[in-house]
Amino acid sequence: MKVKELGEQKILEKIVKELPSHLLGDDCAPIPFGNYYILTTVDGIHEDTDIPPGMTYYEAGWYSCASSLSDIAAKGGFPISVLASVFVSEDFDVENILSFLKGVDECASLFGAKLDGGDLNFGEKFSADVFVMGITEKKSYVSRSGARPGDVIIVTGTFGTPSGVLKKILGGESVPNKLREKLMKPRPRVWEGVVLTSLGIITASIDSSDGLYESLKTISKDSEVALVVDYDSIPKDEWLVTNFSSEEVFNHVFFGGGEYELVMTSKPEILDRIEEIREDLEIDITVVGEVKEGRGVYVKKDEKIMEVKGRGWEHFRRH
Amino acid sequence: MKVKELGEQKILEKIVKELPSHLLGDDCAPIPFGNYYILTTVDGIHEDTDIPPGMTYYEAGWYSCASSLSDIAAKGGFPISVLASVFVSEDFDVENILSFLKGVDECASLFGAKLDGGDLNFGEKFSADVFVMGITEKKSYVSRSGARPGDVIIVTGTFGTPSGVLKKILGGESVPNKLREKLMKPRPRVWEGVVLTSLGIITASIDSSDGLYESLKTISKDSEVALVVDYDSIPKDEWLVTNFSSEEVFNHVFFGGGEYELVMTSKPEILDRIEEIREDLEIDITVVGEVKEGRGVYVKKDEKIMEVKGRGWEHFRRH
Repeated sequence: MKVKELGEQKILEKIVKELPSHLLGDDCAPIPFGNYYILTTVDGIHEDTDIPPGMTYYEAGWYSCASSLSDIAAKGGFPISVLASVFVSEDFDVENILSFLKGVDECASLFGAKLDGGDLNFGEKFSADVFVMGITEKKSYVSRSGARPGDVIIVTGTFGTPSGVLKKILGGESVPNKLREKLMKPRPRVWEGVVLTSLGIITASIDSSDGLYESLKTISKDSEVALVVDYDSIPKDEWLVTNFSSEEVFNHVFFGGGEYELVMTSKPEILDRIEEIREDLEIDITVVGEVKEGRGVYVKKDEKIMEVKGRGWEHFRRH
Repeated sequence: MKVKELGEQKILEKIVKELPSHLLGDDCAPIPFGNYYILTTVDGIHEDTDIPPGMTYYEAGWYSCASSLSDIAAKGGFPISVLASVFVSEDFDVENILSFLKGVDECASLFGAKLDGGDLNFGEKFSADVFVMGITEKKSYVSRSGARPGDVIIVTGTFGTPSGVLKKILGGESVPNKLREKLMKPRPRVWEGVVLTSLGIITASIDSSDGLYESLKTISKDSEVALVVDYDSIPKDEWLVTNFSSEEVFNHVFFGGGEYELVMTSKPEILDRIEEIREDLEIDITVVGEVKEGRGVYVKKDEKIMEVKGRGWEHFRRH
């Protein structure tokens, strides 16, 4: 069967089924090592599917690294080391390879890691993989499957802006630089992940690379619970709300992706500490909903509750 | 400047210069961790440049994993975890993705590691990166720069066969299966690397992925010594010697590559232990030369000593 007939999600399910490993199927592979888990993750980037018009190679490197760091962040890990493997054609400009690697290195450097190695290969078009290794204490490790009814749902940052920005850029419109950077140069929530998981009350954690809905759906599925979010509570940038129709905003928020924010569930004790976390720890978190018995992702909006269905970012089907 | 104008080696030198990291430029990035180094490495594979006719996707997966494991082996590391990132088109057969990943996983399983995760991406043609993480005790770690005059040069296995096999296959000739596997399904020298580095007398180590000459040249350059090998001592498969002219054999042995054998220098004490290592530890090692003052790679052949120059396998120039 062809890739386009099955789609990314079903292919990944098939891989997990046919190559059984308890480590496959989370953001990172957690490798036990004494009192620690070493966390490893990789994200690929391809010129045709992942590099929007106007993104520089420096930004593409930053973006790739941020995307992998975000997976480490979701597990409460510190990044330790970064490798990058690059595929380029014979006619590719060498300076662009260097720009890409500098983007990778400088994003990693924000969090104390560095680009430590990699590989250089032939490819018709530019593509690359950025591999990040991190570490977390076993007692801080949070999977996607620990959400329980009665928990609350918390998120960092805002949602919808990166895909709103992409929409405008693809339509040839200009976007304020600060917002453009939310798409092109996202800041992975490494510090936030380390601090929040160390509280000992986070029950499930994932990043929102593929869209808020996809993150919530994954926690719902892996934890066997229903997640109910209050639409008005979800943080949205003013720019998004004023530049799109309310239906478009809804779609960007749930299905847009590219935020690289954290989506977590927590024991309700966190409610007493939200102000402390926001003010003393300077972590921009918001409570957006609660965990219930059942399955699925629901949204409270205009005094109604409806089930959200659809799909976040998926390779091959959207392409 | 374009990639083809500069060539792989010069590009890598430029990267190391512009992105200074003490970890760039060896087979693996050694990350200090208590009494250990965590070793990370990545190797890319591309349908157009790295998959010879007749190689199955299972073998391509095995090969990619073996190639990365060989870098870990050269540093005396145990592999702990493997990730694979795959780029495929929409029309690619899903079964071939699974075959590739099974090849990766089964090669890793030989040495106690597993495929623990990865990424799936769009690409016009098939390409992939295999990342391997390993670990070694700090006291066992051997760089490429410790060879000293008076040391001896040792190698595992035989040289020249993989590129000889490739030549025959590209010419449409058939090759005995056992020899074909030396090209398609190499066995990385993980056990040998762990045992030999634990002896405490190995002074420099590298694998021979890019050809024996390239390995010797790298040790010569990094250790600032001359390496003199005795041509007749270099182990060669009977098949190679009987199927090629003596000039061709010389070229396959020095410039062919793809052996994934270990090329090491050792304190001369190893000479007293060669039989023990070969018989009791069942490690197929051979002493092939010695380290001298000076620079460069020299070969003793037909009672003459000549300097070997040329290049091993290099992307972009050969392509």
